[in-house]
Amino acid sequence: QAQHSQNTSDSLSNASLIQKSKIDFLENINMSLDLRMSFRTYTLRGGDNDYQGRQFENGFTALGISAKIHEKVHVNFRSRFNKTSEVQSLDQLGNNIELANITIQATPRLQVQLGRQSAYFGGYEYSFKAMEVLRYNDIQSNALAYVTGIGTTFNASQEHSVGFQILNSRTVLYSEKYGEDTAPDVREPDWPVELVGNWRGSFFDGKIQTRYSLSFAQEVKDKWISFITLGHKYENNKLKLMYDFDYSSEEIDTKGLATNIIGGEFIAQEVTYVENWLRAEYKFNPKFTGLLTLMTNTTYGKNIASVSSGRDRLRTSYGWIPTLYYRPFKDIDIRLFVAYIGRYFEYSPLAIRDLGVGSYNENEIRFGFIAPLRIL
Amino acid sequence: QAQHSQNTSDSLSNASLIQKSKIDFLENINMSLDLRMSFRTYTLRGGDNDYQGRQFENGFTALGISAKIHEKVHVNFRSRFNKTSEVQSLDQLGNNIELANITIQATPRLQVQLGRQSAYFGGYEYSFKAMEVLRYNDIQSNALAYVTGIGTTFNASQEHSVGFQILNSRTVLYSEKYGEDTAPDVREPDWPVELVGNWRGSFFDGKIQTRYSLSFAQEVKDKWISFITLGHKYENNKLKLMYDFDYSSEEIDTKGLATNIIGGEFIAQEVTYVENWLRAEYKFNPKFTGLLTLMTNTTYGKNIASVSSGRDRLRTSYGWIPTLYYRPFKDIDIRLFVAYIGRYFEYSPLAIRDLGVGSYNENEIRFGFIAPLRIL
Amino acid sequence: QAQHSQNTSDSLSNASLIQKSKIDFLENINMSLDLRMSFRTYTLRGGDNDYQGRQFENGFTALGISAKIHEKVHVNFRSRFNKTSEVQSLDQLGNNIELANITIQATPRLQVQLGRQSAYFGGYEYSFKAMEVLRYNDIQSNALAYVTGIGTTFNASQEHSVGFQILNSRTVLYSEKYGEDTAPDVREPDWPVELVGNWRGSFFDGKIQTRYSLSFAQEVKDKWISFITLGHKYENNKLKLMYDFDYSSEEIDTKGLATNIIGGEFIAQEVTYVENWLRAEYKFNPKFTGLLTLMTNTTYGKNIASVSSGRDRLRTSYGWIPTLYYRPFKDIDIRLFVAYIGRYFEYSPLAIRDLGVGSYNENEIRFGFIAPLRIL
Repeated sequence: QAQHSQNTSDSLSNASLIQKSKIDFLENINMSLDLRMSFRTYTLRGGDNDYQGRQFENGFTALGISAKIHEKVHVNFRSRFNKTSEVQSLDQLGNNIELANITIQATPRLQVQLGRQSAYFGGYEYSFKAMEVLRYNDIQSNALAYVTGIGTTFNASQEHSVGFQILNSRTVLYSEKYGEDTAPDVREPDWPVELVGNWRGSFFDGKIQTRYSLSFAQEVKDKWISFITLGHKYENNKLKLMYDFDYSSEEIDTKGLATNIIGGEFIAQEVTYVENWLRAEYKFNPKFTGLLTLMTNTTYGKNIASVSSGRDRLRTSYGWIPTLYYRPFKDIDIRLFVAYIGRYFEYSPLAIRDLGVGSYNENEIRFGFIAPLRIL
Repeated sequence: QAQHSQNTSDSLSNASLIQKSKIDFLENINMSLDLRMSFRTYTLRGGDNDYQGRQFENGFTALGISAKIHEKVHVNFRSRFNKTSEVQSLDQLGNNIELANITIQATPRLQVQLGRQSAYFGGYEYSFKAMEVLRYNDIQSNALAYVTGIGTTFNASQEHSVGFQILNSRTVLYSEKYGEDTAPDVREPDWPVELVGNWRGSFFDGKIQTRYSLSFAQEVKDKWISFITLGHKYENNKLKLMYDFDYSSEEIDTKGLATNIIGGEFIAQEVTYVENWLRAEYKFNPKFTGLLTLMTNTTYGKNIASVSSGRDRLRTSYGWIPTLYYRPFKDIDIRLFVAYIGRYFEYSPLAIRDLGVGSYNENEIRFGFIAPLRIL
Repeated sequence: QAQHSQNTSDSLSNASLIQKSKIDFLENINMSLDLRMSFRTYTLRGGDNDYQGRQFENGFTALGISAKIHEKVHVNFRSRFNKTSEVQSLDQLGNNIELANITIQATPRLQVQLGRQSAYFGGYEYSFKAMEVLRYNDIQSNALAYVTGIGTTFNASQEHSVGFQILNSRTVLYSEKYGEDTAPDVREPDWPVELVGNWRGSFFDGKIQTRYSLSFAQEVKDKWISFITLGHKYENNKLKLMYDFDYSSEEIDTKGLATNIIGGEFIAQEVTYVENWLRAEYKFNPKFTGLLTLMTNTTYGKNIASVSSGRDRLRTSYGWIPTLYYRPFKDIDIRLFVAYIGRYFEYSPLAIRDLGVGSYNENEIRFGFIAPLRIL
């Protein structure tokens, strides 16, 4: 039979699918529109900073689709509209496409994930969807969470699972990220690869949980990033308490903070970031929840004071974010919130004297709404 | 229980939702693909213009989703594929995302809208989806309709409602819109804010309707745009007749038309736009509808002729757009159309003499289809 | 009644639709997420090339929607996330929107397609969705498949159909594609138009099929591209065998290959591309399928050797792509694959001597998955 349509090859390919009823499709698809919008009033003061502003801002706007397309296969997709859709030169997707992967249940305990996915980093700061975090600490503000590769998760028991991932360490080619003009010892690797291992544990009926990870990423040839994150959570009916410790030792600076402080023509090398992060959530009643996030980052460079001074502290930053959630409806998770966001960036005497920088602070009042909206 | 998925935090968040049945979700979601595609044949003649062209053009291509996600909450989303997806620096969404908001029915009469939304401007030209308008008059061709903020609507009675909005007045930061090199008195405001008030009235069983609005927008520090629009509609079984009057007094030119005429290094200041717009739609029978749009714009500058000449007319433009719709199917709103679009841009003697411009006209024949296609 | 919503004009337009039940909508919509992700290991050697790399890559990531919205009307939409979303200046859609069209069944045998659509080129290489092709031959690697216009298909019988299309020949305006600085005889046409005619035949109960097309495209004023493609397929239970012959005579080079070889300031003129392409697919059993693609391209310039040398061969390229598919699940079309991709670019003695180029080869091992995933 001659085809009725010129574009049969372009129409949705369903020929090779065993026909499922439409109700089955409907039962197995989830769609969501996730929104966070807020009004910000902020000031930056100190050092070279003297700035203030006010604005409405769409902090998080995303369309997510997940579907169970087979007894053993899920597909996960999310387009985040607050990120650039410019197609990335290394893995050929815009950074707006945070998720585009399939998950295969290879055995009852082993799961394999293929495609654009979130790195299996530990820590509870990282475990939140960006919609839930008003301000990330310095590492996660500048880290790349969604990259392409293969992940496996093994559920050793009800309480413990381990994961391992092999990923591209970036989404763009070397020349786009570093330009043509690099330091003499900075060269392109054959493969900008990242290896992530994690362990997730659960103790005392889930009251205590842990998310640990260790990762190694080759950013340029023979220069590696080692990143450890240790996350801990205590949870009961009213209270959630989370504490993360992060340590990133970077043979070439991938976060850019040290490079910005040190200045100069090239990307900084041999830098270290050490962080503490704490978040407490207390549910006063079904309508009101109080939150407090506290965080610090210390940034180190190498041989800044002198050619043999070793690891030199450049800056310590502090953050405190008290927040109040109000849930007007009991049967849908829409939250109105008001928060204060305080940051203080305290430069070391060395940095102030030798690098011409000055300590500064940010103060912000923010109110708005957070709405994870299931639509199908 | 240890999680089976590494990306639980990234999967669709449904834990906090009271489980609704899938059929409920289906009942409460609407999806549409709205398309207008046409073939254009056009000429520009007069002044510096001597140009003609022919092309197929996708004038309007959008995916819309709206869902009632709770008895009192709707979510509205629209991605318009004919607009740039570059993330805007002030409100963090591309201009392609025209709608990304939730509407809350706070009381039976009061509705609150939060997020990226259309400004509550009056006028019937503005009330149409862009799919329905082949050519906007000069103000709306250059105005920003979709911005971020908060709107409230109060339904005073069956016949009358009033609305009030507080919005960002632009989507990008000052430096991106105006560059670094601005006139000496042009400075960044703390908040580029826009206030919109409107009234919608209905008289004689809806035969006469009105849409009035008054808005004030701070574009740069201490320089405001005042915009009045008065829209009127008469409607019976066969005929719709709409007339709008628009007046925009701009301490700094946000439409760019006066700036283009005056020329020079900086954005023009103290300009005024005055418009009339009329649209008639007559339904000959279920298959054929005739339309006629007529419009004028007069653009004024200040002290152009001399340092104290006051408001000087720069240009008056005219437009006439006779259109014929043909609906081939009675049970779906797909329209084939053919239209003539005539524009004449008549410069004032002052502008011709002092600013080196010349009057010109545009002529265009356009045919194509308009299809608001509900798909779910 | 006064409207309850400020944005009635922006909400989904359903007023003019005869109400269909939600189950009807559900029955008539198809959504799919189509994915191909792979790990590539490749080398380029010879001539000026000495490069190798390894990376995960999202070769194909697309969301498709098709819906029967009326007994006689379908809508087709596909967003391909691996392509730029920059709005194209001529037809006002990003190249990521591969399909945005409606198809109307005008008579039982005649179908009309309006909007962004795939050109009705012949050949089986072109008939595949890009997800299914690991490497295109030289013409299709550089051709524009999705443009805007009108197509008609006439089903003459069960076995034979013919199609005719009138399209824009590009998506961007002349000045964006060719810049301001063009050869003296290169000027903008009023309409960059493309005409495509095709014939699809089926013989011996579909065992032999053909897809032939002939097209003419005006790229710049009075300079045309003539493109012939002759596709043939033999199919039985186990084996599919496809062979295409392509011939493209280009008064101005639209593929860019000859321009790259010849070098110089301007786009090359009077170039010819001749191609052979063969693909065999053999189904060993329900789990394993073997594929082999073979291809050649010969690129010619005019008067390269001397002012009257006529058609001069510049380069012949060869390609061979053995591939193995493994389908782990019998009831869903997810394929794991491993492939070798070999290319050899052999320059003519003329090109090597006069144009300073050298032959080179590419070798690649690729493995990954192909998944056309129906989600609704």
